[in-house]
Formats: sequence, structure tokens, C-alpha cells
Amino acid sequence: MTATVNRTDVTGQMIIAGNPVQGSGTTIHGIDPATGHQLEPGFAHGDDRDVDAACAAAAEAFAPYRATTSEERARFLETIADNIEALGDTLIARVCAESGLPQGRVTGEVGRTSGQLRLFAGVLRDGGWNGARIDPALPDRTPLPRADIRQRKVPLGPVAVFGASNFPLAFSVAGGDTASALAAGCPVVVKAHDAHPGTSELVGRAIADAVASTGMPAGTFSLLFGSGRGLGTALVTDPRIKAVGFTGSRSGGTALVAAAAGRPEPIPVYAEMSSINPVFLLENALTTRGAELGRAFVGSLTLGSGQFCTNPGLVIAVDGPGLTSFVESARAAVAESTPTPMLTPNIAGCYADGVTALSGAATVEARGTESDAPNTGRAALFSAAADTFLGSEVLQQEVFGSSSLIVRCRDAEQVRAVAAKLEGQLTATVHVDDADLDEAGRLLPVLELKAGRILFNGWPTGVEVGHAMVHGGPHPATSDSRTTSVGSLAIERFLRPVAYQDVPSSLLPAAIADGNPDQLWRRIDGRLTQA
Amino acid sequence: MTATVNRTDVTGQMIIAGNPVQGSGTTIHGIDPATGHQLEPGFAHGDDRDVDAACAAAAEAFAPYRATTSEERARFLETIADNIEALGDTLIARVCAESGLPQGRVTGEVGRTSGQLRLFAGVLRDGGWNGARIDPALPDRTPLPRADIRQRKVPLGPVAVFGASNFPLAFSVAGGDTASALAAGCPVVVKAHDAHPGTSELVGRAIADAVASTGMPAGTFSLLFGSGRGLGTALVTDPRIKAVGFTGSRSGGTALVAAAAGRPEPIPVYAEMSSINPVFLLENALTTRGAELGRAFVGSLTLGSGQFCTNPGLVIAVDGPGLTSFVESARAAVAESTPTPMLTPNIAGCYADGVTALSGAATVEARGTESDAPNTGRAALFSAAADTFLGSEVLQQEVFGSSSLIVRCRDAEQVRAVAAKLEGQLTATVHVDDADLDEAGRLLPVLELKAGRILFNGWPTGVEVGHAMVHGGPHPATSDSRTTSVGSLAIERFLRPVAYQDVPSSLLPAAIADGNPDQLWRRIDGRLTQA
Repeated sequence: MTATVNRTDVTGQMIIAGNPVQGSGTTIHGIDPATGHQLEPGFAHGDDRDVDAACAAAAEAFAPYRATTSEERARFLETIADNIEALGDTLIARVCAESGLPQGRVTGEVGRTSGQLRLFAGVLRDGGWNGARIDPALPDRTPLPRADIRQRKVPLGPVAVFGASNFPLAFSVAGGDTASALAAGCPVVVKAHDAHPGTSELVGRAIADAVASTGMPAGTFSLLFGSGRGLGTALVTDPRIKAVGFTGSRSGGTALVAAAAGRPEPIPVYAEMSSINPVFLLENALTTRGAELGRAFVGSLTLGSGQFCTNPGLVIAVDGPGLTSFVESARAAVAESTPTPMLTPNIAGCYADGVTALSGAATVEARGTESDAPNTGRAALFSAAADTFLGSEVLQQEVFGSSSLIVRCRDAEQVRAVAAKLEGQLTATVHVDDADLDEAGRLLPVLELKAGRILFNGWPTGVEVGHAMVHGGPHPATSDSRTTSVGSLAIERFLRPVAYQDVPSSLLPAAIADGNPDQLWRRIDGRLTQA
Repeated sequence: MTATVNRTDVTGQMIIAGNPVQGSGTTIHGIDPATGHQLEPGFAHGDDRDVDAACAAAAEAFAPYRATTSEERARFLETIADNIEALGDTLIARVCAESGLPQGRVTGEVGRTSGQLRLFAGVLRDGGWNGARIDPALPDRTPLPRADIRQRKVPLGPVAVFGASNFPLAFSVAGGDTASALAAGCPVVVKAHDAHPGTSELVGRAIADAVASTGMPAGTFSLLFGSGRGLGTALVTDPRIKAVGFTGSRSGGTALVAAAAGRPEPIPVYAEMSSINPVFLLENALTTRGAELGRAFVGSLTLGSGQFCTNPGLVIAVDGPGLTSFVESARAAVAESTPTPMLTPNIAGCYADGVTALSGAATVEARGTESDAPNTGRAALFSAAADTFLGSEVLQQEVFGSSSLIVRCRDAEQVRAVAAKLEGQLTATVHVDDADLDEAGRLLPVLELKAGRILFNGWPTGVEVGHAMVHGGPHPATSDSRTTSVGSLAIERFLRPVAYQDVPSSLLPAAIADGNPDQLWRRIDGRLTQA
């Protein structure tokens, strides 16, 4: 049936196991935040029957889908990437209209999204994800012989993915959660974010077409529209769903975690939720280039209206002339910054509320220029003494957008004390000169326990997709610090180990078969070998 | 202060950061289940202040403990193993008296426990647990250069371990949870099981002495006595505890999971809880050796009074002459089986209740001989039709002890249907002849989704400690199917990845340092290399 829909049409329909399905609930529209105008067509939300149909199809697809070879799944992911790129300007225009994001950023995000899918194709071909281990039999061991025991990883089952508002492509329908779950061998049911329904449909059809053209089971992918607390909860509590990927607010993620934990069979939820991404400016770096750092900081702060999970919402430094230069320079840069549209009217409203709350608890250092345009976010820079910060809950909460707080400390010891009191973070940034390295060495062990990524002399708003990246961190940055949602390690979220003891050779999966047919790196008696 | 206590004395005191501490709560005694007599001395339960002291010490120890090298921690684990072995007959006699387990089994468990500690020493020296990855900088990449990004794993923080009743050594104070957490760099606070307090003290002192003699921070290890729902809950909800290891009942594990999830900062709980370990007897195997299988099955069923997490509590087969031979042989073997003492009066009572419940829902095929001795468990064999089994909740519940249920199926398809309806399991066993391999190939994919370990032509009651073992499985076998509590992979439960971006060379941890000083296998740009 998908063949009757042109790939570049936006129809307002969901996709369940390859079929277009018209929702029966509330109709929502994309909204161009730059104008406030509503975009056509409308998208009717799905209901519990749609959740049931998508989950039934995913459950049915699971056995044949996970039985595909790594090479087959790699080609499937590459076909999705090709299909997304083939949408070209149609997709880019739709994303820009629905998000207010500039074209350059969206073009980059297309490349990031297809690159991410291709990264996981490479992960599949490498095969390390199997975690293959073999402890060969020791029939002559005393007092008891040892059986032949082998281990590999298998997929958990159908995965529910919740698209994020702030990356309509890279953290949405075909984003990192979907790519890593599909790579692992898990069918995926996506709940699209209401902020970019047309984008979601276009990308969803690119996936569904790849399912069809590469011969994957139809239920491998479905796309639903609906509210988070209604359809979203129904999805997470469906017994056929075995894991959840989510990027969004702390309250939304916490609700999904609770729903998953309350199931008769609890399931893992990978929710990326909340982070204020502290930036530590050490003494000599501030002294030698405080003003330069201030300008660069505001560049990171205001990038994309500050709508990055890794936006630098907190600056921590010892008070003194270096910090004064930094603040002066940052104030000037913020004051010159032009408001740009935020992703949705709701996000713009929450941002304004958050800035108001901070204004009551900290000193306002600067605001961006005013604007008559709808849904814009005016940058905001605050400061507070460390003692004030440590005693305040409101100052430690994320304000999603171009808002940041400078925390003035008495000395380096208080900087470390502030670091130790922080909640979990996606990132922690340190700016140093050579003369700061001793102090940085004292700070680093504290930061290792607080953040998933620690970066030096850079800015956190840029998350490389690769093998070594961690986009994760202790609660509340995420609900599960043992993982990452970006980079190749993300596939491990959707796998579990199984041991095979004395399983007849003819029944052994290729990853742990005799003769190593897939030429994997495997641990034989604990030692890595490709033999 | 520990120096004033002889290593082989049992004093009734807890150990907090190396110091003997007298509890102030209810006094409990070990009980010899073979006689019902209470053993001296008494052990007074600790309270919230003891939890606070142990957690404070663990939190203080964490930074210096995790800063130790892999080699230092390896020697620490080996010293614990040496100290446990040096306890010799004193330890073995105490375990036998407190558990009713025979000396041969206890001697074996000492070896298993020290072997497990030495396995993790080897894991530390191998260094693969670091998960080292390096994506080198690409300064000339367009449109944007790539930063230098490296990844390694760091320990989560202090871990609470709950000793199990059924392995007073291997799953208790110095068992797999403690060994893997200490290996990972996490201080450990153990709540001893009330069933073997003297054993716990002896082993606890062996660890505390190793802490002292190898120069580890005192708070690296503490041992508390207390009730699960009182002191245990206080321990799990202490903000300084960052993960929990538990082996015990489904209700106990579920309560700990709920307590951990309700914290302001939720933490992972690795609870091994409940499994009935289905055994599938395929047609040709039954025809050629049904009687032999029946005898061997009862050997596994009655081993150690059936008090293994992997006890075969369910047998599934197609009804027919082969199954009749199996049942006749198993009936005879059960009828001849001599009751042996169970671990505690409470466990013996629960077993009797469970058997009574099964007797009302299934056909009683055989019971073991009666006994006047206290606290013994009489083996029990039941059977039911598959349709009855599928419609009954009580028949699918674990009865801890030598009780098993034979499920008679119409055909191979119904065998698979029963398999698909099972809850998660630690193990699934399949008995086959060559002529059964096609059918086994149809069953295997079902079992992969139900169990952590699949074994052929053997019995599940024997869990090899090695690199490929998985002692885990989907809920309710465990609370987290992504892991194992036995074998070297268990260390991953207590680690999380951290990315280091453009971190100055002098500050990089050895695992991801330039020049690979520890000669680890690392992923450079995604490819494994020791360079």
C-alpha cells in the first residue's frame, strides 16, 4: 500500500507495519515558529488500537527480523540512509518550516542522521556487538569436567522510541535510538514528536520503504502520532515492548521510567532528560584569555537558540579580574545577540518562565535584544555567589534555551565543592592553560562521577557521532548512566547476553560457531582472538 | 582494632571500615538445621546509624579505592582468596553447622569462592573491562575538524550486596557480587544473611584483613547484620549507595527494586530472584533413554535438597511411551530419595507450603521418604497436562526445594507454545538425540528469549564460573536481563562509560593514554588493536 503514496508527499497518516493508517483522535498541526502559522496537513493522533496493532506487528516481526544476518541489517540501515538523503530539499524545507531551525543546521542534521545509520552498519559488519565468548570444554578437568560454554548477545525485543523536539532528524524517527535498536535486531515503534509531524512522516516512510525494499518483515517499523502521557504510556506499558528510548524533559522521562517500572515485567528505559552542562574556567586560562572565552562561551550558549541538551547552562570560576573580563565580554556578546525562533510556542513559553524564575534568584548580567517576532528566546545571563547557588534548588534546574548562570567561587576548593554538589550531567567542560593542569587534575576525578563526557578547552554543544562518544551521564542527565544514546556503544542498550552450554554444533549461531565463520574477535578462555 | 580479634574467632560483631561494631538491635543466632539447635554467639542487628557509618566510610573510600591500579586491586582480591582458604576447617565447620550442607559441597564452595576472586584478578590484569576506545582527532576534516575523543569505564560508586541463603560463600559476603564490585573499583557494604551469620563474620574478617594488609582504604568493605526490610531498605536508599547486588526471593528482590527506583536518584539493582528452569525432553531422546533421563533428572532435582537457583522445577515433553518411561523411572528415584535438611526452618516451612499448593493443582506422581528429622525437605514430583499448566498461576511459581512438575504436551507444537508462555528463566535445558536436532532448532529461538543460559543434554544445577557463563535472564529470573551475576562479565554491572574530549595527555587515565602503557586491547577508530 505504501507504493500508492509518493515518497515526498505529507499525508498526515501514521505508518503501521508499512501501511498508512489514519488516526481517529485529536488532530494536531505542525507550526512554523517563525510565523506562528499552522502547517498542513493535520495529523490525527492514534489510540490504543493503533498501539496494539503496531506492537502486534513488531512482536510478529521480531523472530524473523532478528534472524537476519548482520550484513542484511547493515544494508537495511544503509538503505534508510539513502532514502532519507534522497528526500533532499523536500525534507529540509519541511524540517525548517516545522522547527524554525536554519537551513544550514538542518542540512548538517540530515548528514548526521544518515551518517549515524551508516555508523551502525559498520558496527554490524565489525560484529563486536555480539560479545562472542567461548570457554571450550575441559573433559579431563578434575574433580569435574567443564562443559563447552559460549556466549553471545541477543536483542531484547520490540523497542519504543520517543522522538525529541530539538533534533527533528538525529534524535527523532530515524535517530540514534532507532538506528541502534534496529542494528541490534529489535523492531521499533516510534511515537513521533508533535513538534515536527510532517518531518516524522517523511522519515518514517523512508524507513518503511527500506523495510519493503530490503525484504525485512513489515512490522520491523511503525510510526504513531499521539500524546506522550496517553498513547506514549500505552506504548511503554504494552507487554510486547521490551525497552524504551526517549529524549526530552525530566518530567516526561521520569513518567516513562515510572510506567516501565510499574509493568508486571519491568523494562529498561533509556531516557535522556536534563543537564545544565557546567563549564569550569580555571585561573590561568581566565587570566590570559578571559575576554576571548566570554565571547566563545556566548557563541555556544546562543547556538540554535540554546536548544541543545549540551547547552552550557552553568559557568563556575573563582572570582577575580579574569572572571570579570570573562563576564564583561559575555555580557556584551549576550546584549548583541539576536533572538531566534525557538522550536515550538510551548518551548518558548517554558523558556520565558524559566528565565523569570532565575531572575528572582540570581543577578541578571545581560539579556539579548528584544524582538517582536513570535516564539523567540532572548538570551539571558545570570550570576550568583557559590554559597547562594549551593543553597538554591531553582538555580540548579535546567532552563532549556540560551540561559546560563555564572557561579562566583571564593577559591579553587569551593569550585570543587560546587562540582561535587552538582546533579548528574551529560557534559562537564574545563578551560585550562598549562599552569592550570595541577588544579585540573584535582577537579577531574570529581567530574568523572558527575558527567558522561568531559571536555577541555572547547564547548559542549557539538556531539561527535563515533565510537568513543558518550552522550549520557548520571541521573538526572539520563535514567541509566551505564549507557550512551550517541555513538556505536548505544547498540548495547538493546542487547542481553545468553550462554550456550554443550549446544550441538549444527545449532550454534554463527557468532559463536566453530571455525569462526564471521571472523569475529572473540574471547576464547578470556583472551581476545580472531582465530 | 581488627588485630585484637583472632581471625578464626566468631564474635557476633559487625565490621565497619575494619572496626568490630556491636549491634544494638534484635539478637539472632545461627541455627543448625540438622538439629534445630541454636549456635553461639548471638549477632545483634545493626541500625540506621550503622548503615550511615558504613556508607560514609564507603563514600570516603571510593575516591582513593578507585584510584588504585588494576594490579593493586588484583592483589587485593587474591589476598581475600588466600585469607578465606586459610580459614580452613574452621570455616567449613561453621558453614556446615549453619547451613546443614554436607562437607564435600562446602569444601567445593570454598574453592568456587576463592576461584571467583582470582578470576576477577585475571579480569583486572586483562584490562578489557576498561572498554578503552579512542577516536583520534581529525584536525583537517571538513566542514568541521574532529576533536580527540576517548572512552573508558569508571566505577559507579559504593555497592550494597545482599548475601544469599543458599550459597553461604559463593553468593554471599565474598561472593560474585562482592568480587565483581570490588574488581570494578566500588567499595562494598554487605548485609549478611541471617541464615549464616558466623560464616559471614569469618569471611567478612578475611576481607577486612585483606583491606588492611594490602593498604586499601578502610571503608572499602563493611559487613552489617540486620533485617532485609529494615536495615536492608535503609542501605538501598542511602544516597551514597550507587548500585545493589541481591540473590534471594522474588518478593525480596522486588521490594529492593522498588526502593531503589523510589530514590531521588534511582540506582540499578541486580536482583537474581526466581526461576523454575524448564527442561525439555525431545521425542527421540525420550524414546531411546527415557528411564536413564528420569534417574539423572532426579539426581539434579534432589541435589543439595533442591536448593539451587537453577533447580529443574519443570519438565516439558510430548506425552507418550518415552515420557511414561521417564516418569516411571523418576517416580522410583524420588520415592527412594532421602530427605536432607534444608538451609533454615523458614525455607523448610516455605517448601512444605509450596508442595501443598502444588498438590492441590497437579497430580502427585511421587514423594520422597518421610523423616522425623527437623527441617528436612521431602522431594515431590507432580504432573499436569499442558492445558492445565497454561491456565494456572500456581503451577508456574517457583517452589524452592526438590519439587518439580512434569507438563504433558499433545505435540511438539504445544511444547513450543508452553515455552513461549513461560516467564523469564535463568536456564532452559534441552535433551536431544541427533534425530531431534530439527525440532531443537525450532525450539532454540524461543528459549533464547526466555533464559540466560541454554544447555543441551545436561542438567542446570551446576553453574561454571568462567568468561562465557551467564547466570541471569529475563524478569523475574532477574531484575536486569542485560547482565550476569556469575562469570567475568559481571564486572560490567558496576561500571559506566565516560568520554574524554581533548583532555591534556598528562591528565589521561592509563587505559586511554597515548602509547598504551597498560598494553590493553583498545578500539581505535572502532577497530580493536593492542597498538
